[in-house]
Amino acid sequence: MLLPELREQVCTANRQLPAAGLVTWTSGNVSVRDPETGLVVIKPSGRMFDDLTPNDMVVVDLDGKVVDGDLGPSSDTAAHLYVYANRDDVRSVIHTHSTFATAFATAGLSIPVYMTAIADEFGCEIPLGDYAAIGGDAIGKEICRSIGRSPAILMKQHGVFTIGASIKAALKAAVMVEDVAKTVWYASQLGPLTPLPEAEITANHERYTHRYGTATASQG
Amino acid sequence: MLLPELREQVCTANRQLPAAGLVTWTSGNVSVRDPETGLVVIKPSGRMFDDLTPNDMVVVDLDGKVVDGDLGPSSDTAAHLYVYANRDDVRSVIHTHSTFATAFATAGLSIPVYMTAIADEFGCEIPLGDYAAIGGDAIGKEICRSIGRSPAILMKQHGVFTIGASIKAALKAAVMVEDVAKTVWYASQLGPLTPLPEAEITANHERYTHRYGTATASQG
Amino acid sequence: MLLPELREQVCTANRQLPAAGLVTWTSGNVSVRDPETGLVVIKPSGRMFDDLTPNDMVVVDLDGKVVDGDLGPSSDTAAHLYVYANRDDVRSVIHTHSTFATAFATAGLSIPVYMTAIADEFGCEIPLGDYAAIGGDAIGKEICRSIGRSPAILMKQHGVFTIGASIKAALKAAVMVEDVAKTVWYASQLGPLTPLPEAEITANHERYTHRYGTATASQG
Amino acid sequence: MLLPELREQVCTANRQLPAAGLVTWTSGNVSVRDPETGLVVIKPSGRMFDDLTPNDMVVVDLDGKVVDGDLGPSSDTAAHLYVYANRDDVRSVIHTHSTFATAFATAGLSIPVYMTAIADEFGCEIPLGDYAAIGGDAIGKEICRSIGRSPAILMKQHGVFTIGASIKAALKAAVMVEDVAKTVWYASQLGPLTPLPEAEITANHERYTHRYGTATASQG
Repeated sequence: MLLPELREQVCTANRQLPAAGLVTWTSGNVSVRDPETGLVVIKPSGRMFDDLTPNDMVVVDLDGKVVDGDLGPSSDTAAHLYVYANRDDVRSVIHTHSTFATAFATAGLSIPVYMTAIADEFGCEIPLGDYAAIGGDAIGKEICRSIGRSPAILMKQHGVFTIGASIKAALKAAVMVEDVAKTVWYASQLGPLTPLPEAEITANHERYTHRYGTATASQG
Repeated sequence: MLLPELREQVCTANRQLPAAGLVTWTSGNVSVRDPETGLVVIKPSGRMFDDLTPNDMVVVDLDGKVVDGDLGPSSDTAAHLYVYANRDDVRSVIHTHSTFATAFATAGLSIPVYMTAIADEFGCEIPLGDYAAIGGDAIGKEICRSIGRSPAILMKQHGVFTIGASIKAALKAAVMVEDVAKTVWYASQLGPLTPLPEAEITANHERYTHRYGTATASQG
Repeated sequence: MLLPELREQVCTANRQLPAAGLVTWTSGNVSVRDPETGLVVIKPSGRMFDDLTPNDMVVVDLDGKVVDGDLGPSSDTAAHLYVYANRDDVRSVIHTHSTFATAFATAGLSIPVYMTAIADEFGCEIPLGDYAAIGGDAIGKEICRSIGRSPAILMKQHGVFTIGASIKAALKAAVMVEDVAKTVWYASQLGPLTPLPEAEITANHERYTHRYGTATASQG
Repeated sequence: MLLPELREQVCTANRQLPAAGLVTWTSGNVSVRDPETGLVVIKPSGRMFDDLTPNDMVVVDLDGKVVDGDLGPSSDTAAHLYVYANRDDVRSVIHTHSTFATAFATAGLSIPVYMTAIADEFGCEIPLGDYAAIGGDAIGKEICRSIGRSPAILMKQHGVFTIGASIKAALKAAVMVEDVAKTVWYASQLGPLTPLPEAEITANHERYTHRYGTATASQG
């Protein structure tokens, strides 16, 4: 069996999606790219998260050919592969229909930097991608065209995709995009909101990405 | 005891309703039709979900006569039976008052195909049925008249009914109608929403129902 | 120790409040009246629900005098006692600040019979009581004056009180008033709502209270 | 290892934040001041709550110098220290981005005393602090300037800080500010709200803080 360790990690990450309240029934998926072989490990199509085992994960090459696995790969596989082919820095892609992020996507709205948590985590407005058909590489193209430096993008009338240099980074983006979308949603019903000034966005993002979690974190 | 295996399945499915957050206290019910005998196994009336055992399930014939069981059948039994008598393709019926679906039902609104998840799962607008009295077959008649090809219908000022070729299919529809109602509800407060074009609805539904979960799922 | 069985039941019911999501920290309380002695068993004041033991429950007479117990009784004790003194049919009183019911109370709104679940459970509009000071018997007086035949009342800018012929009935009312308040809240944001006609309210309530949960439940 | 007991308490309190639904991923932090040495024990920066052990806690002096601990202290450490240096009565500080409190903060709104639970717990409007940069002592200064007698303050476009004479008091304020923000949020969508009269606010707060939880609680 190819890539047993990555199968294990991808299986675990997929099962974290329902645990984090980001997916319902079989929607949503996690993939990872193996840096050595270039192969991609992804969730099988249409399976319940709680039943997934590492053995169920599907290994595909960048052309979408299944090179190891008994099940069909996620119907979003082509979108994941397009991102890997065009973004060398991305090692993991996650897709969900999490409620609040998808609500913004369905209303056709991006999420401006209304509070420090968005500046910290995303460093910029969370962008809205155009509507793109599911199944082919249209979604992947729109992600690459519109995601910019954000680790998350809202895909119009569909859901959310996140990317990261690791599974953990992509998972964090998936959790945090829903968390900030939820807070901004509730704030938006209370009155008009104002984005942070650009200098504050930059200062927060710089502190968060360079010093947070280090031994000098409190010196900022 | 008649139909022990179906009693077990119906009991399990009823207990999944509170686990999925679709029901409160004793509201809601699941039934299944036995294809061989034509008998229907349904939840007893007014019992707490967590106390249900397979033995508590009630077996009725299509006229509503209890043929096995010590408890009274659900007060929605006549509605279930009317659907079975008039829809050969239906093997399971589920009724809930799940919050968001019932909110649309209470406001007298159907749920248009505002996003891909609705196209995937329902293939069309989730219809609104007219108000119908509880207890007799008025609800069953309105379901058959108005549900069309959707697996779910919102019943005005009441709740939601779903149907399926299996308990799992009806349960999936009950879970997904609440999930998409929730997302659309949040989207609806952000601004005006636009349904997907008919061609996109058809393309998504065709992909989802014909290729999703198969070994060629990624080829679409 | 007086009334060991009722202490056990009141303790269990109090601990069900956080389990049902109806209370936060120490707010909320359950009491029961012993039909033989007329004594009332109630939650102690200011204790965390998860720490409660039957021994912590406080036994008071109808004048509020502690006749057994080491802790002070709930600060809502006088309200409970006034209800017991003036409503012979009530054996249990419950008070919560559950989110949606309290939102209607805070906005100064009753909850009309917008859907069948309210007709079933309450049989009428869920009334709004005037603001009344906490601590004395003003709340009890307002409950008796305004609750009518409903098992629940919203107390303006405060929370919700429910009554029942048993702890289970009062607890069911506390769970269901929050459940219907939640659904009506979501419905209210979608557009104007219309109460059910009086004849439908009566028919639903009659069916629910007389035949629901019995062996002839499906005959209605 | 310095202050083993306080490390244990601070670790436990930090882990209660996700359990109470107040934080997501690594956001949020709890600290305590040792009354004898004046040292402060605080959560390390950027660590997942579920992985925290007492040994991970960081001990700093009032100048922010790490005196014991292998990890970097929370990026909010300077804010906590400023409060300790300027409020002798405060022994614990907590920071979260809890959804509803942060929604009010993001919309730039304080929370008036619309219901008794706010009068009980806070005794006054929950104030809104001006926007202040994260990392230095600007947040601490704004907390001290604007929190008044409330145990909680909403920091504009950021989140919430609470203070207390004990970890439990600060934690209770963090739980209750989110609970009342949630209820007020839902009430605010139903129509215009009116604060309680000043005399009722005072009466409720006096009863709650002086008699609640005591053996004479029911005498009020």
